[in-house]
Amino acid sequence: MSAPLDTPAVAGRPCSIAAALEIVGDRWSLLAVREVMFGNHRFSQIARNTGAPRDRLAARLKALVEAGVLEQREYQTSPPRAGYHLTRAGRELGPVLQSLLEWGDRWAVESPPTTIRHHDHVLRTGAVCDVCGERLHGKDIHRVVNVAGWDQAGPVRPQLGRTPL
Amino acid sequence: MSAPLDTPAVAGRPCSIAAALEIVGDRWSLLAVREVMFGNHRFSQIARNTGAPRDRLAARLKALVEAGVLEQREYQTSPPRAGYHLTRAGRELGPVLQSLLEWGDRWAVESPPTTIRHHDHVLRTGAVCDVCGERLHGKDIHRVVNVAGWDQAGPVRPQLGRTPL
Repeated sequence: MSAPLDTPAVAGRPCSIAAALEIVGDRWSLLAVREVMFGNHRFSQIARNTGAPRDRLAARLKALVEAGVLEQREYQTSPPRAGYHLTRAGRELGPVLQSLLEWGDRWAVESPPTTIRHHDHVLRTGAVCDVCGERLHGKDIHRVVNVAGWDQAGPVRPQLGRTPL
Repeated sequence: MSAPLDTPAVAGRPCSIAAALEIVGDRWSLLAVREVMFGNHRFSQIARNTGAPRDRLAARLKALVEAGVLEQREYQTSPPRAGYHLTRAGRELGPVLQSLLEWGDRWAVESPPTTIRHHDHVLRTGAVCDVCGERLHGKDIHRVVNVAGWDQAGPVRPQLGRTPL
């Protein structure tokens, strides 16, 4: 399933980055997803480990469930208690978190609080094109704007025969 | 240079994702970086293309300059006008934006507003380990928490000889 989780009305440039940030563009949302990915499914664990204010966290978790990023599963029936689990959309946020972690390791901390290991060495993620297998270089990549009325510079105005100012 | 851009006091788990989000964890920040990456350097272009309220955008751009993600360069002297450009730290946000774009394409929009092309085909980013060259699979990846007092589950309390509850 790759149906859209929702179709938010995004201001500015029509863009999948903006649409993604409508769903997960709040730091508590991404940190909550991090905790669930780490295996911490209970509200109290997520609150403690993110440091999020409980009321804001509750609102963000509710929104993430409604958006289809998280789902609740009961782990106790009496009294009823449910934990948060990743949906497929939630699991696919892995590369977003990994790219933030690698940027943060490099630019936002003195030394990495967590080391991600791959087999017997420290992981350093590289990017390839899945279609042709080549390593990615900026010069080989081009953006094509598919939305009428916009190009890379912004909204395109009809010229009406006038010389641009 | 990979000195930290700043050392924010982050609540909760010591984590590079949280530290990164202290700097860029606001949707207007990442959308502003997107516009500068697209070659739109002027405040008015960034405001129009992101749809951000001008006062919030001004505050976020100021914070991004202070954090070392953007820098201002004069493009006109009389009257003086400066545009925003990416620093090296800013350029290295490329993979963060690309991962959000791919997630958004898949989960947040009906059809991709922008297509990223690699040579003559549509780019689909895959991840490899730069150290050994292997494709990444979750089973080969392990997290090691380097901060005393925390593990993957959360803060570690001294047991004081008591049976855990």
